[in-house]
Amino acid sequence: MNSHFHNSEIKEHPIAYLSGLCNAGPNKMTDNLIHHENLRVFSQQVIMKLGAFEEDAYCVADNLVKSNLRGIDSHGVGRLKRYVEGIRTGYILPKASPIIERDSPVMANINAMNGLGQPAGVFGMNVAIEKAQHSGVGMVTVFDSNHYGFAGYYAMMALERDLIGISMTNSEPLVVPTFSKNAMIGTNPIAFAAPTKNERPWVMDLATSVVPSGKLEVYDRLGKEIPEGWATNESGRSTNSPAEVLVNLYKGLGKGGICPLGGEGELHGGHKGYGLGTMVEILCGVMSGANILRDVTFVKDGKPNHPKVGHFFMAFDPSFFTDIDSFKNRMDEMISRLKNAEKAEGQSRIFIHGEKEFEEHERREQNGIPIDEKTVESLIGFSKEFSIDLEFIE
Amino acid sequence: MNSHFHNSEIKEHPIAYLSGLCNAGPNKMTDNLIHHENLRVFSQQVIMKLGAFEEDAYCVADNLVKSNLRGIDSHGVGRLKRYVEGIRTGYILPKASPIIERDSPVMANINAMNGLGQPAGVFGMNVAIEKAQHSGVGMVTVFDSNHYGFAGYYAMMALERDLIGISMTNSEPLVVPTFSKNAMIGTNPIAFAAPTKNERPWVMDLATSVVPSGKLEVYDRLGKEIPEGWATNESGRSTNSPAEVLVNLYKGLGKGGICPLGGEGELHGGHKGYGLGTMVEILCGVMSGANILRDVTFVKDGKPNHPKVGHFFMAFDPSFFTDIDSFKNRMDEMISRLKNAEKAEGQSRIFIHGEKEFEEHERREQNGIPIDEKTVESLIGFSKEFSIDLEFIE
Repeated sequence: MNSHFHNSEIKEHPIAYLSGLCNAGPNKMTDNLIHHENLRVFSQQVIMKLGAFEEDAYCVADNLVKSNLRGIDSHGVGRLKRYVEGIRTGYILPKASPIIERDSPVMANINAMNGLGQPAGVFGMNVAIEKAQHSGVGMVTVFDSNHYGFAGYYAMMALERDLIGISMTNSEPLVVPTFSKNAMIGTNPIAFAAPTKNERPWVMDLATSVVPSGKLEVYDRLGKEIPEGWATNESGRSTNSPAEVLVNLYKGLGKGGICPLGGEGELHGGHKGYGLGTMVEILCGVMSGANILRDVTFVKDGKPNHPKVGHFFMAFDPSFFTDIDSFKNRMDEMISRLKNAEKAEGQSRIFIHGEKEFEEHERREQNGIPIDEKTVESLIGFSKEFSIDLEFIE
Repeated sequence: MNSHFHNSEIKEHPIAYLSGLCNAGPNKMTDNLIHHENLRVFSQQVIMKLGAFEEDAYCVADNLVKSNLRGIDSHGVGRLKRYVEGIRTGYILPKASPIIERDSPVMANINAMNGLGQPAGVFGMNVAIEKAQHSGVGMVTVFDSNHYGFAGYYAMMALERDLIGISMTNSEPLVVPTFSKNAMIGTNPIAFAAPTKNERPWVMDLATSVVPSGKLEVYDRLGKEIPEGWATNESGRSTNSPAEVLVNLYKGLGKGGICPLGGEGELHGGHKGYGLGTMVEILCGVMSGANILRDVTFVKDGKPNHPKVGHFFMAFDPSFFTDIDSFKNRMDEMISRLKNAEKAEGQSRIFIHGEKEFEEHERREQNGIPIDEKTVESLIGFSKEFSIDLEFIE
């Protein structure tokens, strides 16, 4: 049985529509479950109501829902309101179409024209895949784009063609370079997907920071201290208070921030995370012509600002080096050896990258996607505002 | 004034030639300084005495000495004895020449024929550079190779041509995947070099582990405990004893090991370092046809074994996406913004990747390379054995 929320029913569900950037992370889960296909159609319709073309809105909705399916709720439909805000504020142009500015058999540079990040990303990755199918390698940069959702989505597009896929993006500055006082670079993710034979594909999708900002929010809500080495306060030194970090980062102060992978200073390799984040900044920002560092912002001098985010995509054909069967068999062999290695004391399982997410995908595809309270409120808000049915699993 | 060590003088210098793998790290520095050019010629001659061709021996020597010049003594001439051992044991074939097995305008797979890693690396990177100059991108894998020295060496080769360079290699298993009990993957480095205009080139060269094994050795010698999260013991859990880790790793037990970047478990992102290390394993090992995981070993069933290491090289032309001046100016701009950002409390400088190493290079090129006691002993041993002059700066 399904229950529907229509305009008339909304009164029963008090809406506290919380704007701002502080709500990326998973919130308290309710019993609200939505079927992934319904959630996708709903999200797509919301974006279309704001002026986007059907297939562009599909790209956005599919990315959000796939993220939820994989259990990465920080990049799921909870983000829909950010895109709505972005379109309304004017920094996202919903009708923009990406343009190939430079092109060769192996490379392309694409102008996203300040449009939605997801259609620009899908377009860019498809160009990379096409080049890889013809030339062996495709390398594509995208500039003047917006938040493109979860990075792994694009890397995984390569899998259907038996290609290896890479996807990176720069993003608003939340991460503090080693020995810096303030956030200068984004959580700048790196995603890498490789095909396999019988095992699940190997899919790595990581922010180059110790933790995503959503994790700080979870600790904040639970009233828990964050561990040493996750984030710094306005002095640029480690703090245990998640609230301090979130206020500093999101209230326009830009002070302190999240530590790069490896933590504060150099003792545990924080300079390596800072290096990887900067590498992403070079490939996505410097090389493409997009904004870099603190210029990647939605608000400048108190006014809305095109963040002009940049992405980097690669696809390449592993069958070139040996042959595809040999590659896939060897992937399976590697995965099987890692899985079956002896476990550390107290541990029962060694995970393969992407495995947790594929399992969650299967569960949620079957049982529905659980939606947290705050997101339910925002979805009901959209349902009311745009007169779009929102269907829960009862 | 220079002092020479000849055979006749060796008696004054008792040699305790320490074999084994436990001596990668910087040891106690003495006042022994050697001019980099003399050290290069000396190292080259040693390798030639063991049967290598002049230019192959040059590749090895130049890589070792450049590493010393950059202050990365763990990959400097202290490693010469490992290569000597490798040739003598038979797992490195000093006269082997790399063969291109598969070739296309953008890709190549190269068989290193179990030869020295450095000449195979230089050959592979040159092939990648040539392809990048013609096609925009060059991607090259090398299989059946040996330890190729420091990864950044190859990435930096791209800089002379205004290309971006990438270099990775798999290596003997020292790193423990998240929740595993034992070392399964190498410290699998990633090096990335990008050209600049007036600033020094941006050069990142990082092991995907928290620390290199050399650092554990330094702590061991100093009788210091290592911090939580650097390495695990035979139970697969964090330990403070560097000796415990080193004995486990190097005495053929293969138990415990170094933590991936991000540390033990998932709290600080250890699964991300494990992911990056595995990505390197896929690109260098799985894709090229080289050995993977614990097969990368010099000793198998008590017998010498070809480790059959694999490398991955890329060069690509950033001028394709915008133009080279714009790219280099934007690199300078990024670097300058990072450098000039506000410093964390108690810090006076934000470092740019490669900067420390370029500064050390300039100092050591001027003043000579300081050589630690253990390495002095081994060099004097070679001087005596092969009748090659070893010249110190007095």
